[in-house]
Amino acid sequence: MADDDLDARMAFLMDAGRLASITRATRVVDGSRYENSAEHSWHLALFAMTLADHAPEGVAIDRVIRMLLLHDLVEIDAGDVPFFGAGAEDTAAQDAAEAKAAARIFGLLPATQGAAFLSLWQEFEACETPDARFAKALDRFQPPNLNLATGGGSWTEYKVDLAQFTARMQPRIAPAAPGLWAWLIGRVTDYFEKKRIG
Amino acid sequence: MADDDLDARMAFLMDAGRLASITRATRVVDGSRYENSAEHSWHLALFAMTLADHAPEGVAIDRVIRMLLLHDLVEIDAGDVPFFGAGAEDTAAQDAAEAKAAARIFGLLPATQGAAFLSLWQEFEACETPDARFAKALDRFQPPNLNLATGGGSWTEYKVDLAQFTARMQPRIAPAAPGLWAWLIGRVTDYFEKKRIG
Repeated sequence: MADDDLDARMAFLMDAGRLASITRATRVVDGSRYENSAEHSWHLALFAMTLADHAPEGVAIDRVIRMLLLHDLVEIDAGDVPFFGAGAEDTAAQDAAEAKAAARIFGLLPATQGAAFLSLWQEFEACETPDARFAKALDRFQPPNLNLATGGGSWTEYKVDLAQFTARMQPRIAPAAPGLWAWLIGRVTDYFEKKRIG
Repeated sequence: MADDDLDARMAFLMDAGRLASITRATRVVDGSRYENSAEHSWHLALFAMTLADHAPEGVAIDRVIRMLLLHDLVEIDAGDVPFFGAGAEDTAAQDAAEAKAAARIFGLLPATQGAAFLSLWQEFEACETPDARFAKALDRFQPPNLNLATGGGSWTEYKVDLAQFTARMQPRIAPAAPGLWAWLIGRVTDYFEKKRIG
């Protein structure tokens, strides 16, 4: 393969490395600091690999893993929007920023590969295929588990209660991953109940 | 699937999250801090996905990606040994610590999945199959690229010169990924030459 093919792929990979500097609202599992989007992407890919047997029939887990490896790259230009933070509902501006970011970042690659990666990211964002729906469900399923492990995490920071959690999360997790939702909501309910009793 | 199956998988995934607290000798691409093994694992999986066309024929890239997602988990118990650091050649003690770590960490999973993950990790370590050889080559190929991006990184810290770099790296990268080695050694030679002229 020609040298400029490899130049382009390496330019993409080194630019992608900047994802390690994008900070999220959740904390790493030992609570010591905020998680970044690179380690979050790794953790999610490992979730997909480990929870494959809990995916609905017809989900191609290796495509889900690839989707998750790419899903946050747009944050390098567009930033992370905390799920329970202010501005999380103003999606039009954020969507435009992410589309622009995707064009630039995947545009660093050789044309055929850039188009394939862009298409996989767009599939994730559209959340209509079984693979994308399961990938998106995992992206919503991991942070509550980190919050449980770190004594509340972003729930405490954004003053989220059980009703708000359920309203926002159930539609995003339960349809695509019913077993994971059933497991999670039991634990989250316990957490908020214990906190209420205090 | 039974609830205790999911309990076991989630215990594994939350323990795995501690990989974000294992610090490596290389710096993240903007040079601001040391890389951790979770974001390193993500970056490597993205390398595999992006450089698939440069893998030797017969390499199953999705198996390589899975291998790379798991490859450093043993560091949660056994720590990271910098490649050019003191102790990097005392492999017997480190191998024993890693085998013990693998038994504990993969032992958190349901038995069948734990055995499958352990076997994939052992395949990576043994470095005899085409998939493992390519995965291991990527694990050696990524850090020099971070060093080039950060003005020398761990080469400066461990006083590594071009001859040492070539002696240690060529046997580990060139046979399994000749195109990547040819691309890299040109850039690394330029770096050391410019530093010499200084």
